[in-house]
Parts: sequence; C-alpha cells; structure tokens
Amino acid sequence: MNKKIYELAELIDKDLENSLMSEAEKDDLAKEMKKYLPENAIVLAQANPISGNVKYNAQKALKWIKWANRLGVKVIVFPELFLIGYPIGDFIDRFPVVVEENIEWLQALAKFTTDTKVIIGFADFNKNKVGKNYYNSVAVLANGKIERVVHKTLLPNYAEFNDYRHFESALVESENRITAIGDKRAGIIICEDGWNDFDFFDKNLYAVDPVEEVVKKQHPDYLINCSASITRAKKEQLKHNMLSFAAKKHKTPIVYVNQVGSGECLSFEGASRVYDADGNLTAMAKSYSEQFFIVDVDDKNGQINPLPKGLEKTLNSQKAFSLDHEPDLERTYLTIVQSIKDYFKKTGFKRAVLGLSGGLDSTVCAVLLADALGEENVFGISMPSRITSSESKNDARDLAHNLGINFLEIPIGDMFDVTRTKFDELFGKMEERWNCRYKNSYTNDNIQARARATILWGVANEFEKCLSIATSDKSEAYMGYATINGDMSGGFAPIADVTKTKLFALAKWMNENRKVKNVIPQSVIEKRPGAELAINPKTGKPLLAEEALMPYEFLDEVIWRVENLHQTIGDMIDVEFLYEKKTPVSKEQKKEWLEKFFRRMSFAVYKWSILPPAPVVDARSINKTEYRHPIIASGINFNKTSAEEKYAFLLNN
Amino acid sequence: MNKKIYELAELIDKDLENSLMSEAEKDDLAKEMKKYLPENAIVLAQANPISGNVKYNAQKALKWIKWANRLGVKVIVFPELFLIGYPIGDFIDRFPVVVEENIEWLQALAKFTTDTKVIIGFADFNKNKVGKNYYNSVAVLANGKIERVVHKTLLPNYAEFNDYRHFESALVESENRITAIGDKRAGIIICEDGWNDFDFFDKNLYAVDPVEEVVKKQHPDYLINCSASITRAKKEQLKHNMLSFAAKKHKTPIVYVNQVGSGECLSFEGASRVYDADGNLTAMAKSYSEQFFIVDVDDKNGQINPLPKGLEKTLNSQKAFSLDHEPDLERTYLTIVQSIKDYFKKTGFKRAVLGLSGGLDSTVCAVLLADALGEENVFGISMPSRITSSESKNDARDLAHNLGINFLEIPIGDMFDVTRTKFDELFGKMEERWNCRYKNSYTNDNIQARARATILWGVANEFEKCLSIATSDKSEAYMGYATINGDMSGGFAPIADVTKTKLFALAKWMNENRKVKNVIPQSVIEKRPGAELAINPKTGKPLLAEEALMPYEFLDEVIWRVENLHQTIGDMIDVEFLYEKKTPVSKEQKKEWLEKFFRRMSFAVYKWSILPPAPVVDARSINKTEYRHPIIASGINFNKTSAEEKYAFLLNN
Repeated sequence: MNKKIYELAELIDKDLENSLMSEAEKDDLAKEMKKYLPENAIVLAQANPISGNVKYNAQKALKWIKWANRLGVKVIVFPELFLIGYPIGDFIDRFPVVVEENIEWLQALAKFTTDTKVIIGFADFNKNKVGKNYYNSVAVLANGKIERVVHKTLLPNYAEFNDYRHFESALVESENRITAIGDKRAGIIICEDGWNDFDFFDKNLYAVDPVEEVVKKQHPDYLINCSASITRAKKEQLKHNMLSFAAKKHKTPIVYVNQVGSGECLSFEGASRVYDADGNLTAMAKSYSEQFFIVDVDDKNGQINPLPKGLEKTLNSQKAFSLDHEPDLERTYLTIVQSIKDYFKKTGFKRAVLGLSGGLDSTVCAVLLADALGEENVFGISMPSRITSSESKNDARDLAHNLGINFLEIPIGDMFDVTRTKFDELFGKMEERWNCRYKNSYTNDNIQARARATILWGVANEFEKCLSIATSDKSEAYMGYATINGDMSGGFAPIADVTKTKLFALAKWMNENRKVKNVIPQSVIEKRPGAELAINPKTGKPLLAEEALMPYEFLDEVIWRVENLHQTIGDMIDVEFLYEKKTPVSKEQKKEWLEKFFRRMSFAVYKWSILPPAPVVDARSINKTEYRHPIIASGINFNKTSAEEKYAFLLNN
Repeated sequence: MNKKIYELAELIDKDLENSLMSEAEKDDLAKEMKKYLPENAIVLAQANPISGNVKYNAQKALKWIKWANRLGVKVIVFPELFLIGYPIGDFIDRFPVVVEENIEWLQALAKFTTDTKVIIGFADFNKNKVGKNYYNSVAVLANGKIERVVHKTLLPNYAEFNDYRHFESALVESENRITAIGDKRAGIIICEDGWNDFDFFDKNLYAVDPVEEVVKKQHPDYLINCSASITRAKKEQLKHNMLSFAAKKHKTPIVYVNQVGSGECLSFEGASRVYDADGNLTAMAKSYSEQFFIVDVDDKNGQINPLPKGLEKTLNSQKAFSLDHEPDLERTYLTIVQSIKDYFKKTGFKRAVLGLSGGLDSTVCAVLLADALGEENVFGISMPSRITSSESKNDARDLAHNLGINFLEIPIGDMFDVTRTKFDELFGKMEERWNCRYKNSYTNDNIQARARATILWGVANEFEKCLSIATSDKSEAYMGYATINGDMSGGFAPIADVTKTKLFALAKWMNENRKVKNVIPQSVIEKRPGAELAINPKTGKPLLAEEALMPYEFLDEVIWRVENLHQTIGDMIDVEFLYEKKTPVSKEQKKEWLEKFFRRMSFAVYKWSILPPAPVVDARSINKTEYRHPIIASGINFNKTSAEEKYAFLLNN
C-alpha cells in the first residue's frame, strides 16, 4: 500500500474526532487519496461505541460510513455489536426497547449506504417460538438496504463473557455468511465463531468450527471477523498465533476488526489486522486509538502499527511465565489509562480526587489519572494521621509537585480523636451487654482510613463532575488488606487488577518511559509498603504490609498460580517458587503462608463483592465482571484430602 | 399415609438437627415407624447444604442416608448439586479441587449405601475433548456402589442462573435416566429439565423437553425431579401449575425434591412435593425448614404442609397484579428471616449492629434481625444529628424496647462539626484551583450518613462475630436515594429487594402476625418517610423522601412495570396507574416523574454495583446476582423514538 494513503488517512481520523473539516475540504482530501487507493481497498472501522447509547453509536457509524462512501471503497467493517454498544451487561433483557431502537437505527443507517457496503454488528430479535429472545448479529448494508443478516453461532459464556445469557445460538448457515465485496467473496465470522479451531486448541468448547464450515462449503476469497475482544495479559500472543494458524491452515486471508475503547471494566485495544493466506500479518491498526484503517487484502505490505512495547518479543511464547512483568508494562499502562479516560467520559465525570499517602498504590494511581484526565483535573490530598511518617508526607508532596497535579495537605488527627472519644463511650456501654470485645481490634486503623474516605467523598459531593478514587491493588484485595468505606471505597479503582510486584515494575517503567521522566520519587519505589495505620509493637515503627501478610513476591506468585494454574496448597508445596530461588523458605513456613493466603482470601471475598469498577488487566482476575465467589462459600477445602481420609471421617462422624 | 408416620418423623428431624439420640433410641424409633411404613415409602431429603463446603454436605448427607437405611425405605432423594453445594458462583472453574473432592466424597458416601438407594446431586467432570469442563449431575448410589450417573440437559443461564457458565449440556439419554425403585421404575429429571413443556409455556427456551422424551420412550412409573429452585414472588404459583400440568399431561406422578435454606442472595423454600398422575398435589413438605419427608407415590393422602399464608389464595392466578402485596407478605418475611439466619451461620457471624433512625427501613430491619438472630444478638444504635426530630428518637427507643433488642443513643453532632470545619477549610482552598463548587450539594446530608456508618463499622470491628447492617430498601436503591459509605453500607442488606409500599404492608403484617404483637410503633407506620438529613426550605421541616422523589405508590408501580413488563416511558404514559385511580395526575406531571425515574436510575446503577449481599425476594430485582447494568450505559434512551425521527437526526447531524 502506498504510504501516502496512511498519511492522508490520519486527516480522516482527525476529522472523525473533531468534525472540523468542511465538505469541500473533505472532497479535496478524498480526491487526493483516490489517486493512491488500490482498487480493492476496504476500511476497518476501529471505533469506540458506548454501551446502550444507540443514538451516539449510530451517529458515529454514519460519520465513518460517509467517509467510506466518499472514498468509494468496497466495504467498511465495524466491530461486533457496535450499534447497541458492547458490553451490554443484562440491559437488553430488561429493556428490550434498546434492541428495538438499535434495529430502527440500523434501518435508518442503511438508507445512507451506496455501493460501498457496510458490515456492522447489532442485536437482532429471535422471533422463533424456541430459544433466547435475541441474536448477536452482523448486518450487511448496501445501496440503501439491509442486504443480509448473519447470526453468531458460538456464544462464549465464561469469565467476562455472557453471550448465552441473552443470545440464541444460530446454525452456521455458511451460504448466508458470504457477501460479495467488489469481485471477491468474503465470509463473515463473528468473534467467538473464529475461536474454535480443532487443530489449534487442545480442548474445544464447542462441537462446530464455523470457520472450517464456511471455508469448506463456500471457499470464500477471505474471511472477515467482526470482534469485540478484550485485552488481557497473554491474550495478544494467543490471538496472533490462533488467527495466523487459521489463515494458514485454511489458505484463506483473515480480516480481523476489533473494537477499541473501554467499557466499565473491559478494555478493547483495537489492533485490527489482516493475515494473508500463508498466515503472515500484512496490516495492523493502532492499539488504543480509534482508526479509519484502510487495507487491501491482497497487499502484502500494509501498514503495520506497533503493538505496545514488549508484546512482540513474546509473541511466539504465549506460555511464558507471566511473573516476568516487563513485557506487559506498556500494555498495562495503556489499558488503565484508556479505562480511566473512557469511564469518566462515558459516565460524564471529569475530575478525580484521591488520597496521596506517599505509598506506592496512591502514587501510581495519581500518575495514571494525570495521564488520563490531565493534571489540572486531578486533586491529590495528603491526610496524615499521627502515625504517618514525615517521609511519607514528603513523598506525597514531591510526587504531586513533580506530576503537576493539584495538592493539599489536611491532617485528620482531630477527626480521629472525636471518633475515638465517641467509640470509648459507646463501646464501654456496649460491653455491658456484649461481653465479646476483641483485645486487639482493627478499629483504630480503620477510623483513619474511613476519615480519609469521608473527606474524599465529601470533595466528590461538593465539586462538579468529580469522582473519588479507590487505590486498592490486587495483592491487597486478595488478602482483604483494605478498609471497607476506607481506601477500597471510591468511584473507580484503577489498579485493583495489578499485583504489588507488578506495580513496582510499572512505577519504574513510568519513570523511564513517560514524557516527563522520574516523577515518582525514588524513595516511593524503594521503601517497603505499609498502610501506616498501626504501629508494629515488635519494631516500634509503622507495621509493614509484609509483616502482616507475607512477602509480596511470594504472595503474587500464589495469586498467579491460583488464577492461571488452578493449583491447590499441595500442588504449590511441591513446586519451587521464584521467591524460593533467592530466599530459601522452610516447608513449614511455606505451608503457613499458603494456608494464610486461602484463609484470608476466603474472608476477603465479601470485599471483592463491593469493590468499585476497575479495569481488568491481568490474564485472570477477581473483578466481579469476570469472577464471582459466593461469600457464604467460606468452608472450601483448598487442599486435597485422600479417599481414605474421607471414608474414615464418615465412618467416625 | 398413616399420620403416626409424620409424628414420629419429627423425631428424626430433631435428631438430624441436634444429634441427641443414642443408637438404641434410633433403633427403637425405626422399629416403631416400620409398623406404619408403606411398602413403597421413599424419602425426600429436603436439606440445607453450604456452597463449596463438600465435607459438611457429605457428613450431613450421610446422617440422612443412615436414617433412610435404618427405616429400609426404597430410596432417599437429595436436591440438585447437593454435595458441592448450590449456588456455586464461579468457584468450580477456578478451584477444580472442589469438584475432585465432591466426587471423592460421593464415592465415600456410596460405601455406606444398602439396598436403600440414594439419589443425590453433584458436579461431575466432562472428560470429552469438547465442551465445558463439568456436568451438573445426579448419582444413584446403592449397595456400596455408584449405580449410575445422570447429566442435566437443559442449562438455565438467565437472571440468577449461570449453569452454562460451567456445565456442558448432555443428551437426554432417556434409558440412562431410569432407575428401579422397589418394583417401580423412576425417571430422573434435574431441575430445569422439567421446565420446558411445549404446551404449558407460550415460548420455550430450549428445543427439547426431557420430561416428554423420558415419558414417551421409557414409560416410567413416576418421575423424580432433583431441584434447587429459588423462591420469588409469583414463582410458587408458576411452579405449582407447571408441575401439576406436566403430571396430568403425561399421566405420570412427579416427585419434586427442592433444596431449603439460603445461599448469600438466593433462597430456597423447600416445599418438596408429590403430584399424582391426575396432577393433584398429594403430599407437600414444610416450607423454610429442613425435613426428612416420607412419602408414598401411590398414596393420595400424604401429609400436606401449608405454604406461607396467602400463596394458596393466588395459586391459580399467577398473573395477578403483584402490587397487591398482602398474599406475599408471609413468604417475604420467611425468606428474609431465613436469609439472615443462613448468611450469618454460613459466614460465621452471630451478632448484628444497625442504626435505628425511627424510620420504616431500619425498624423493619431490626424486627427481621431479631427474629433471625435472637434479640440478644442485635444492637440498635440511635445516632441523632441536629436535624433528627424528637419523634424519631422516641420511635427508635420505643421500637428497641418493644422488641427487646439492645439499644443505645449516641448523638453525632460533634462528629459532624469536626468534619464540617475540616471541609470548610479544605473546600475553601480547593476552590482556588477548581472553580466548580456546587451551590447546593449533598455534602452535609452525607456527612451525617457517613458518620453513622463509621460508628456501625467501628462496632463490627470491635466486637466478635458482629456484622453491620445496610438498611436501604428497593425503592430508594432504584432512585440512588442512599449514601455511599452511609446507610447503604453494611455486611448485609436485608430489605434491598423490598419496595417501600411493600415494607409498609410488611410492617403492619408483622405487627399483626408475630408472636409479640405491635412491636412497631404506630407512628412509624403512619409518618411519611424522610431521611432527616436536610431541611426542606419550603416547609422548614426535614425533607420528605416523596418531596425529593415522587409518591412511593407511583414509584413502586414504575419499578414493577420495568422489571416485569419491560415497559418504556411511552408505554407507561398510556396506562392508568393504581395511584392515578385515587389521585389524578396530569400527563406533564406523569412524564416528569417517569423521566426523573429513569434519569435517577441511570445514575444509581453505580450504587447497585456496590450494594452488599441482599436476599432476592421480588419477582425480579436489581440484585447483582441477577441483574447487571453497565455503569457506563448512562445514555440509554428509555423512550422509543420513531423511524422518521431517527432518519431526520442522521440526515441533519
């Protein structure tokens, strides 16, 4: 493809973003571009919809369609469920009006089509007497009409996917999936329909492979996959290998169009692309950015925009041990920044307020917020109690200064005192009735955390479009090492799916890779984490998190093994942890930590259920969009027992 | 059936609960019962498992099995997924060890079986290369062995059901579903497998009816349905009519065994039962109570325990307008009391602390908590601010006194003052950077609500096994009329699925029907609700909720229409509300209220996502176990627009 095309197409992207071009300017640009456009140019509409806001999505689609019409390309392809806006949660069952509306908007859009076809995802009604009420569908529009509708066959319903809650599975109907694009015949595939290759996967979820059926029965010139596929650690590696494998196996190019943008907890990274019939990547759109991406399926030299740094390195080693965070840091950064930006934009917020403790979590959150919302829209508030060290206060102030966000310091000692006095009176009287007061409670720790959250929510109540931020990280969420109505409370939790060891790596990475280097004070990265809510009686200093829990390197490896390998306590006793390679751990100590992990995790489950929305980043998470653990399931045995023990127990009880 | 059987069986229920009988006493009881036991007696094991606690469930199952063995009945039937413990959330995917364990416990249990068969639900592995990892299965155990395993075919995956997230659908395999019970042949059905009759339902979710297939191909003498079917408003009516219809249609008796007890948000009411081949109900177990329920399928006169009062009345009119709360009040009361009891028991808590405002919500919560946990385990704390009226303080005190729960009054004026002083200082400085302070904010209202929650969580931190209670109701949850980290914060939210008008009815019902009458002061039932967090400038008195929102009778009807009829604003404009029959409402006023409803609802969605666990009670709910609305979906148009408007909009934008 002529490079000129991509240079000029950037002007289209700008117009789609800002609508600043006049009709005459648009005509001029189109005229210029047509000089270089190949005969069979098609457009991948890598766009960012809003869930349920069908009018917004339709209006956006039309702008893109008009550009495609103007250029006279063969087709413009939008992602899965674009019109209704993915993710849909459960609203289409409770509010069928949204589905009615998305069909009418589709019909209205069709009226604006020419012989430049439009392929676009929407939700259709299933009017049969049997099955779910809806289909997950793609429409082909051309010359003012809806030419055909294709329904999705494979309905993912695991982790973050809920297709089978709402949609009926359709037969593949390979003939109906074929549409003429210029003088070529393209086969339409909808997301998961393309993820069930029997040779690529060891185990398959479904009995049918729509790709194979379409290829074998219809011999299309190429396949178009309309997707809404979320980004996660290790997913790009899997996706690239799978798509390349399928294209090569079927000797059929694959055009893959992905959504971009974030919807609440799920993030779509774009990176739409083309594989040729040998499985080679021949074009790739930008990551984390809308793009009107022009490709020619026959062109072996399309533009290849880079993936986030680090991902290419590991592209062929999807099973690499993921505690090596480095290859995933830019993707993590971009995912969270996009999530914050879209969460605020799509919910109508603009400003963020957070507590700056001088610790790692709030520091990383502040940087991510500043990059997503602009420094002027972030307010960091340092709220020291009597336990807070002067180092922490300085670190908070330095960070805010380096970063350029707004900053104030407000001590909370008086709020603590009035609450404590009240508690002394109340608890003294209550003891007369309830003789079960803890000797060592977390009450004082929590008063501090809750006073701070009261201040932050107060700010959010007082200033327009302002949201308070929860700074909990994933390691602490697992351990329940966060205060309800305290640090885990907020309107959004940017790093709740990032473990502590990864946060350290991310902090260093941001210091090296952001435009402004080293905004995070070195002392924040070097000091050992602690909530500074209580004094450790043994040391006389603020209690460190690792003293209360276990070493973070060990903890994070347990999390990784649980989420990805589904290991039991016994399984983990039997393998050597990375941590153990550096620091020997006795079997007793290891067992104690593992048991503590599962004991604390079982109690933390309640806190997971009330965590604010948070971007899903890791390969697997405890985000409730993906994983729901019954709070009452506190008696699970995470260590296998033998058949003999079981029989003996039943015999004797 | 001889009535003596049921009298004596109550001793078995007591032994199963308390394990107080010696072996000799058990033998004597069994000997006595055998005198009256019919030849073909079978036992429905209406028992209460704990999610994931397989050891507990196996131990409980064995106790029940031993009693069945001792009586020499033909079979004892447990509910669906009894061994692994329903509901399972997502833990079986992340922790496959639980499934391994439930299979080994099943094998261990089998060793204790005699020629008294055992039919019991468990989760099995799907070892095929295709499909989900697990089956939702029922095992038949006899004479020390697993005789057969039946896999569920129809996998519900809507609302509170998530079967297809984890389980593979199996073919019906009708022959494998038949097991000999004495000289009869029974066909095994698993829950949803029995809910797809093509004649009973207007629309069916699945293409196959396992009941029909089993009956037509195998001609069993009767069907056994192992269920875990939750209670909801109107569900008993549907269930009774459907089971009766199927038994009659197929001229085949149906034995329906249901779980009892509550799991987090879902409640199972038991009421296991038998329908004869004419569709007549011939036996019914207790509701909301474990029961070792002995029946004889051929006996037309089994024991029929009553359903909650009110349900029978409406048994044949399932479509009755459900804003008539009266027929559902005892069921509502029993469901919530069971939920509280089981949530506390299964999570290891014992005591509850709640704020008593003198208003309806906290009053009703206090009564329900006292009935579930015992008065001595409930602490009501009145926390008046300067806005709190003396009437409210008196009502709180009177209620606690009448009810016999622990009570203290602690004013929060000083906590408010110190926070307000801090806010004045902070906001003054912040304004210099952020010139966007609201003229009228909810900041002061929320300081009060948050100070109260800080006190309640402090109590929960300080006293053993104590949980704080969120008192939000359903009407207010819909309107977001609750404070984050305030009244909507707590470890459990007993009435979050009960609308305000139903709460008034429930309060009256409890005053009339509890052992101790009229514990709720009449003034609580008579006064109009208000949060007493702000003064209405127009009246100079505390702002009433209906002044801030809309009349509760109107609001609750909107909720009902949205949840059950899926109506749009336009649909609702066109029908006459019950409220309108008494109080005429102008079209403008109605439209304003409806638009306010959807506007407030769209903003309240974030609050739904962090609501604590709450019992699902109503026919439909916003409990996140059942319904998830993306927070970013704030642009949904709840009012239909015409095709012409859409076209014109696209043309002009």
